[in-house]
Amino acid sequence: MGTIKDKVAIIGMGCTKFGELWEKSINDLIIDATIEACEDAGIELKDIEAAWLGTVFSGHTAISLSAPLKLQYIPVTRVENMCATGTEALRGAAYAVASGACKIALAVGVEKLKDTGWTGVQPTSVVGRSTIGTTGTEMELSPPAMFAQLALRYFHYYQLKPEEGKRLLAEIAVKNHRNGSLNPKAHFQMEVTLEQVLNAPIIAWPLGVLDCCGVSDGAAAAILTRADMAREFRDDPIYIKSLAISVGPRLDLMTQDYDFIHIEENVRASQMAYAEAGIKNPRSELSICEVHDCFTIAEIMVYEALGFAEKGKGQELILKEKTKLGGKIPVNTSGGLKSKGHPVGATGVAQVCEIYQQLTKEAEKRQVEGAKIGLCQNMGGTGASSVVTIWEVMK
Amino acid sequence: MGTIKDKVAIIGMGCTKFGELWEKSINDLIIDATIEACEDAGIELKDIEAAWLGTVFSGHTAISLSAPLKLQYIPVTRVENMCATGTEALRGAAYAVASGACKIALAVGVEKLKDTGWTGVQPTSVVGRSTIGTTGTEMELSPPAMFAQLALRYFHYYQLKPEEGKRLLAEIAVKNHRNGSLNPKAHFQMEVTLEQVLNAPIIAWPLGVLDCCGVSDGAAAAILTRADMAREFRDDPIYIKSLAISVGPRLDLMTQDYDFIHIEENVRASQMAYAEAGIKNPRSELSICEVHDCFTIAEIMVYEALGFAEKGKGQELILKEKTKLGGKIPVNTSGGLKSKGHPVGATGVAQVCEIYQQLTKEAEKRQVEGAKIGLCQNMGGTGASSVVTIWEVMK
Repeated sequence: MGTIKDKVAIIGMGCTKFGELWEKSINDLIIDATIEACEDAGIELKDIEAAWLGTVFSGHTAISLSAPLKLQYIPVTRVENMCATGTEALRGAAYAVASGACKIALAVGVEKLKDTGWTGVQPTSVVGRSTIGTTGTEMELSPPAMFAQLALRYFHYYQLKPEEGKRLLAEIAVKNHRNGSLNPKAHFQMEVTLEQVLNAPIIAWPLGVLDCCGVSDGAAAAILTRADMAREFRDDPIYIKSLAISVGPRLDLMTQDYDFIHIEENVRASQMAYAEAGIKNPRSELSICEVHDCFTIAEIMVYEALGFAEKGKGQELILKEKTKLGGKIPVNTSGGLKSKGHPVGATGVAQVCEIYQQLTKEAEKRQVEGAKIGLCQNMGGTGASSVVTIWEVMK
Repeated sequence: MGTIKDKVAIIGMGCTKFGELWEKSINDLIIDATIEACEDAGIELKDIEAAWLGTVFSGHTAISLSAPLKLQYIPVTRVENMCATGTEALRGAAYAVASGACKIALAVGVEKLKDTGWTGVQPTSVVGRSTIGTTGTEMELSPPAMFAQLALRYFHYYQLKPEEGKRLLAEIAVKNHRNGSLNPKAHFQMEVTLEQVLNAPIIAWPLGVLDCCGVSDGAAAAILTRADMAREFRDDPIYIKSLAISVGPRLDLMTQDYDFIHIEENVRASQMAYAEAGIKNPRSELSICEVHDCFTIAEIMVYEALGFAEKGKGQELILKEKTKLGGKIPVNTSGGLKSKGHPVGATGVAQVCEIYQQLTKEAEKRQVEGAKIGLCQNMGGTGASSVVTIWEVMK
């Protein structure tokens, strides 16, 4: 693979509040996030030369972005990659800018999950996941059931007693809700106690309802431009150091040789990203991370995939509070999918928005002092599509 | 806008037969088209560094491309832009190559429309088009009904009697079926007579069933690389001279000020493409065109949008046989959507495949002698998304 390292920068971002936004249409969300991003970048809508829309479940297409924004006959494209869709919108815009096709591009992620009637615990085929092309005999699991299998196998393999494992997961929820309580845009802007998480109704053992991310509505937007033009717009643009994506050759987790204690695509995407960005020691070089904690077990496994801990040692990072705000490498300062929420198509863009706010010192109560390099990990299809991006502010 | 002109080339293409392919799964179609493209380019699957999948109605996503091809953890992305989706897959791959992100990229378009149960005459919302975000009071028209409105208004505005207009449309069907009868991959590989077209059952007046394109299954694939590397693979790669896309600010045709006799996005995309490619006189500079004749009226209106004729004069091109095989500027030598078929996500890639075969002198009975520059026009959402690409062979 080649690279677009140092060719592209983000000069403005916007994000709506995440939550049950019954009073907002999808057009409202697109407009709110995009206008905020344009104002942040100091540009007008007419300055946008091309746009990418990331959405999975809304049934929307390219004109659903151009119509509410009244974009004037410019190129607009929809991209989709399951729960990694938001980062794909950024990637489409980034490649266009790096290729020379345009100078200023817009990436928007949006979802109104509440409108779909999806509660998050039905098999996802009801809202778009396909089984055509498979044998028809596969088990059809809901997302919590899939990640519950990973959690149980993780406990077994690393000899955690059920109560130890359950508590480990709960610590992730407590940390991310504490961060989310500081984020005015979080779906669940509230702290939770260890007891509350442990005693919450079980969705798929060992995952209780407080181990699961929010089923949210929301939108996020970014304005991208060429790295060599970025300082014309602001003093502190953030630059793409890596944009790595790995999609596995499997249709789901149910392959015969799968160990259920790691997600190979997460590992591959991390390795590709570090190689591209020139990161040798992620734990010391990265200031801050947003990771795809759709379920609490995912965050533990991602620690290991990202090389923050050896296999089986991800638990130590949370138990020793290394990844909390103020720790050595704060993870999910936004609150993560767990507390900030997970409007699928918007999530990848919103993760980068948190990194952007941290690197540009606009993260307010969640600010990590001296943050310079940030990483986002976003995944879809129980990790079958994994994206890792690395961003740096250079003043 | 900037440009990726002369940065990217196609070095191999593949296309399945189009038709009612009940005996083939979507995986079969993806594999057949991709292997043909790889063999044509002289590469192996493992040489592909990144891939794009264009599909609208199949419910498939990125892993649906990586799984059947057993792609090994490379980036794979799904793009969608209604009936212009195929060209978007090519565009994603082209931008990635031009940006430096990869050297060899795969673009695949695929659809199994027959599996959806869609006959082509229901409103498209049943297979994915959304009405969320609109007022809820819009008319919901089937595609033939939408294009029938254009045909009727065109007849009225240019004072064609019903029988004159109906015959004009029929001439398009006769021409394209004659071309398709020479194409072994066409869904409807047969000629039709003027009488058959005129007497075919009416779907939406003035459009009879033989004015409508096929509802088809099929796949097409392309291998793209950097222009400066292309001759390492073959002597006659085709180079991107322009890749222009215009998406309108309207959700459908039903806007108060719409004249119903032109599609503005077609005009804009054409102008952008000619400017990018440096084409001053398209009628004399272009050797060959594939256009989006989803309904016969569309081809007439596209002639005018592409500047082959003044407004209202598109009819002369067909009546004077300028656009038939052997004419001044042959259009839809493949048979077009009308005769070759329209497996939605595959169509844009398949159009380029015809241009590729013509420019590389592999079009057999359909060969246009001396073809050097070809144009494809692909559109979705009654033209709301319009793409025009221009390709040149340079030996």
